[in-house]
Amino acid sequence: MTATLVLGGARSGKSRFAESLVIASGLDRHYIATGRAWDDEMQARIAQHRADRGPSWTTHEEPLDLVGKLAAIDSEGRIVLIDCLTLWVTNLMMEERDMTAEFTALADFLPDAKARLVFVSNEVGLGIVPDNRMARDFRDHAGRLHQSIAAKAAEVYFIAAGLPLKMKG
Amino acid sequence: MTATLVLGGARSGKSRFAESLVIASGLDRHYIATGRAWDDEMQARIAQHRADRGPSWTTHEEPLDLVGKLAAIDSEGRIVLIDCLTLWVTNLMMEERDMTAEFTALADFLPDAKARLVFVSNEVGLGIVPDNRMARDFRDHAGRLHQSIAAKAAEVYFIAAGLPLKMKG
Amino acid sequence: MTATLVLGGARSGKSRFAESLVIASGLDRHYIATGRAWDDEMQARIAQHRADRGPSWTTHEEPLDLVGKLAAIDSEGRIVLIDCLTLWVTNLMMEERDMTAEFTALADFLPDAKARLVFVSNEVGLGIVPDNRMARDFRDHAGRLHQSIAAKAAEVYFIAAGLPLKMKG
Repeated sequence: MTATLVLGGARSGKSRFAESLVIASGLDRHYIATGRAWDDEMQARIAQHRADRGPSWTTHEEPLDLVGKLAAIDSEGRIVLIDCLTLWVTNLMMEERDMTAEFTALADFLPDAKARLVFVSNEVGLGIVPDNRMARDFRDHAGRLHQSIAAKAAEVYFIAAGLPLKMKG
Repeated sequence: MTATLVLGGARSGKSRFAESLVIASGLDRHYIATGRAWDDEMQARIAQHRADRGPSWTTHEEPLDLVGKLAAIDSEGRIVLIDCLTLWVTNLMMEERDMTAEFTALADFLPDAKARLVFVSNEVGLGIVPDNRMARDFRDHAGRLHQSIAAKAAEVYFIAAGLPLKMKG
Repeated sequence: MTATLVLGGARSGKSRFAESLVIASGLDRHYIATGRAWDDEMQARIAQHRADRGPSWTTHEEPLDLVGKLAAIDSEGRIVLIDCLTLWVTNLMMEERDMTAEFTALADFLPDAKARLVFVSNEVGLGIVPDNRMARDFRDHAGRLHQSIAAKAAEVYFIAAGLPLKMKG
């Protein structure tokens, strides 16, 4: 099945737009949360998102082995929302994983997926160059991953102020 | 009348584009400056903007009670440029106002406005997550406000390098 | 000949897209690198870019006198990729040059150029306002330069996730 990438800034409405794509598909809804609830602020956001989605979703939490989880639940008739890629990148960096290997594995999985996939991610590269090296590395990893997913995706959207701008598809 | 949202980055030409919409409308021109001249840098920017606009505008300064000011000058045949929403958000945060109440009041005002309204705002959510909590809260407030205004607006533009990209309308 | 501006974030694929325009043109390929290799990180990026381009390019390094270099190599049948404007701005600021004079000289050169020109630049104005004055000045300079080049350019692209969005042309 096809993959979709939904890119946007903080509080751009990207998750809500991605959820509307999932609901409109009529397929069996799965959700992979990549975020780890490190602190109260993060925990509150995750709980709010889950409450907003309602009970008609099967929710999975997978901070690191995204490809493994996608393979495990892959099935025709399903649509899987992955929210979000930037949190996955953060988790991989904290565990000092091989980013190139992880990104390649995900890109290689896409063409063979039976489920329809909708990836949400933060565009983080449009501000001033960050002072610290880790933030620069994070920007670079995120940008590379976005290019890699966008190249394989059937549809790519850029979201601002809750409005979608179709960049591919 | 209809509302327009003009979103863009720093020095993107968003104010100039919004002013061109106002001039093209042929309506009676009003300008609400939400910025407070805290320091020389800010004061210079405000003075420069006012000089660039010229004398054919009625200028109002309103850092906090934006909805009250809009209601007070609301009239058919007028067009009101509000520059900008992000400075209004900053001022509300400094005064510890109830952001949700303020944003709701503004969104509720839009459909009933007799004047045409043109809002200018900074897109600030496309860089790295800021280190400090206040900046993260500011991003969140701005993003939520943009979604709320965009949902009610007839036209939404995203400006880069002085060029408009129409996202709605 | 015409000028093209390719704007995008960090790791957005903007250089690769600009290179594809150059290759597709069929013209004699020149490349002006404005970056200075201050440290190993920067040096590695420059070397990687040069290796990616391959041997069919004539490469020039010009951190400051961009207009002089463009004039020196200007010729029909050539296409010149300038990568990137934001590094040029950084270099000019470090040397405390007159930014307005430099930007005006570049904008004035464009309509008379015999070669086709492709400018790459980073959009840096879509994050939170930076804490320090120099970063704010840099954002302002970059934004003004982008507006100035975009106004004279025949084509302007905004790149995200490797995908071009045509904003002009």
